[in-house]
Amino acid sequence: LQRFVSKVGGFFQRAWRIGVNEPKKSIHCVKVGVALSLVSLFYYMRPLYEGVGGNAMWAVMTVVVVFEYTVGATLSKCVNRATGTLLAGALGVGVHWVASQAGERFEPIILQTSVFLLATAATFSRFIPSIKARFDYGAMIFILTFSLISVSGYRVEKLFEMAHHRVSTIAIGTSICIITTIVFFPVWAGTELHNLITNNMDKLSDSLDGCVADYFSSNSQTSDKTLQGYKCALNSKATEESLANFARWEPAHGKFNFGHPWLEYVKVGASLRSCAYCIEALNGSMNSKAKVPDVFKKHFGNFCVRLSNKSSAVLKELAVVMSTMKKPTKIDFMVEEMKSAVQELENALKSLSKQPIQTAEAKAGEVVTLVEVVPLVTVSSLLIEIAARTEKLAGA
Amino acid sequence: LQRFVSKVGGFFQRAWRIGVNEPKKSIHCVKVGVALSLVSLFYYMRPLYEGVGGNAMWAVMTVVVVFEYTVGATLSKCVNRATGTLLAGALGVGVHWVASQAGERFEPIILQTSVFLLATAATFSRFIPSIKARFDYGAMIFILTFSLISVSGYRVEKLFEMAHHRVSTIAIGTSICIITTIVFFPVWAGTELHNLITNNMDKLSDSLDGCVADYFSSNSQTSDKTLQGYKCALNSKATEESLANFARWEPAHGKFNFGHPWLEYVKVGASLRSCAYCIEALNGSMNSKAKVPDVFKKHFGNFCVRLSNKSSAVLKELAVVMSTMKKPTKIDFMVEEMKSAVQELENALKSLSKQPIQTAEAKAGEVVTLVEVVPLVTVSSLLIEIAARTEKLAGA
Repeated sequence: LQRFVSKVGGFFQRAWRIGVNEPKKSIHCVKVGVALSLVSLFYYMRPLYEGVGGNAMWAVMTVVVVFEYTVGATLSKCVNRATGTLLAGALGVGVHWVASQAGERFEPIILQTSVFLLATAATFSRFIPSIKARFDYGAMIFILTFSLISVSGYRVEKLFEMAHHRVSTIAIGTSICIITTIVFFPVWAGTELHNLITNNMDKLSDSLDGCVADYFSSNSQTSDKTLQGYKCALNSKATEESLANFARWEPAHGKFNFGHPWLEYVKVGASLRSCAYCIEALNGSMNSKAKVPDVFKKHFGNFCVRLSNKSSAVLKELAVVMSTMKKPTKIDFMVEEMKSAVQELENALKSLSKQPIQTAEAKAGEVVTLVEVVPLVTVSSLLIEIAARTEKLAGA
Repeated sequence: LQRFVSKVGGFFQRAWRIGVNEPKKSIHCVKVGVALSLVSLFYYMRPLYEGVGGNAMWAVMTVVVVFEYTVGATLSKCVNRATGTLLAGALGVGVHWVASQAGERFEPIILQTSVFLLATAATFSRFIPSIKARFDYGAMIFILTFSLISVSGYRVEKLFEMAHHRVSTIAIGTSICIITTIVFFPVWAGTELHNLITNNMDKLSDSLDGCVADYFSSNSQTSDKTLQGYKCALNSKATEESLANFARWEPAHGKFNFGHPWLEYVKVGASLRSCAYCIEALNGSMNSKAKVPDVFKKHFGNFCVRLSNKSSAVLKELAVVMSTMKKPTKIDFMVEEMKSAVQELENALKSLSKQPIQTAEAKAGEVVTLVEVVPLVTVSSLLIEIAARTEKLAGA
């Protein structure tokens, strides 16, 4: 029993820490509560109740299902739900009319077949990537509404009235959701994406710096957390893509316009990830060969550390440029500096190869260099992209 | 207009290709249609209708929402939905009783507060990673049912009857879902996960082989598709984790028992991914330094190609071991061979360093080696894991 209690205690401790560290999430929870309370007012207040009828339950359901963490996600779900319901409603009424013309015997057969066919088609459409990314939820709602209408229409005589009620309750639910998400402490998917990318850039540059410095200086002063920072960039692909998808639905907010090129962020994220792969490999090769004579370490250390400093400075500067969204000014200069550092390191390697005896041990140093070249290539491609993006921003 | 038509045509072509290439998905769509038709029979057949009443719409809804591609996902959603509904139902009835004791004036206040508090708490619990992974859907259903019951209970007098109906309709819906997923062409999350991992292993070994061979032989005979195979492993993290999560819900099927160590698959997937990172870096460094004298290429080529052959053979063999799930027999021997190939390559490097002049250009070859060492380390760690896993299997 004691173990169970301590386990539960640990669980609540972790939960508390999440709540304290990420106040946005706690606020989101309160927002859900507020939205639900608002919607249940429709039930408690008599005059409102007369208006929307017993179907008000649909409004509650809409709020629960549609309310998401970011504004973009909520908006996209609202739009999906509305279009799905409308489309399915129209189709359902149409099929119903056809079926009722066909006589009592064929009516259930026609309805059954249409449900079967449309459900199959809509489910299939959810497997197509371009639809899955944006209209997955809409397709599900389409199936749901269509089968509900065509099935229940067979019983409930007042089909039009029912459709009308559903639409009005969903409108109430979605508008409550939209208002609460946007008005009280909105969490914009765009801002989240922006912060995620700039944070990842910062972390990458820190851990690049940290791991090279760590390797070449004997006393490791950088914390393990900094070193592992690049791992965030490795695993953020799915998050970036869904955020970019949601950000497209969002209206203008803060420093972002409506037509902000969110897809560029995904590309920047991809190049960051390829940098992170290189750091991962670099880390691996540094750990695998533990022993390299100190003389070499010192000799190469200077060049390598300088190069990694320059590279991480470029990354840092890029992060600053991204977060302020101004035209880059210092960047070109810094890239030039970085290139010259590469040149120096290459020269050092060449000169070293003239001292025959010690070359074998120099391997470790060389690996660092060459693997370093890859991030450089990536960084410069990233730079080109950033330049393109900022130009677009300047144009917009 | 013509452009629009061609665009729509292209869309359907792509859709058709998906349908033809992945018959499992098409079958899934048909299954959804079948399940929906089955459930709507409850509406069309009069005797059944008397039994479950007008709430049969909940059964339709359950089928639409719960039916997922894999058996595991469907089962986990069913369990989530059932427990969420039951818990929320019990709580809702309890809160209702308390509120009705408190008199007419306080009743709405108590109900409102309880909805607010529980919705906030349940939403918060969805942010806790361990709950999010397994009970996300259940928490949502909990909020939904609780607010529906506590809100509508204020109006509808027959609260118990309503709860009873909801439970029975959900039971009908879930049982139809479970039967259709398991009986007709089931898609097991476990099998999918198993195939995904073994396929990724195969692809990794192919592309490791391919890219080393490509680099050292002048005529590139391997296709681009093989070379890019490792990218699948890079991006499959999320898929693997969700599949492993769903696989835990599945009963025994095929060659897998109920307690199959699915989490080991996630670990194997992670080590595969770190191999893939290395191949990515290897690829990058091979592309960045295009010009290396042919003499060196030949000299190192033999060793490098042999090493990569051995490594990829180990990967291939691991894939075979995994798919047949037998005790590995040849593996230890092959790892020994691989290690000796590493040794040979290292010796070759050392001997080369005695020929002073040409060392600088030999860099490229050396990089290949050292980066190669990292996958070796990973492969052997992977081996240990596999051995542990197969031992567990033998024990089970």
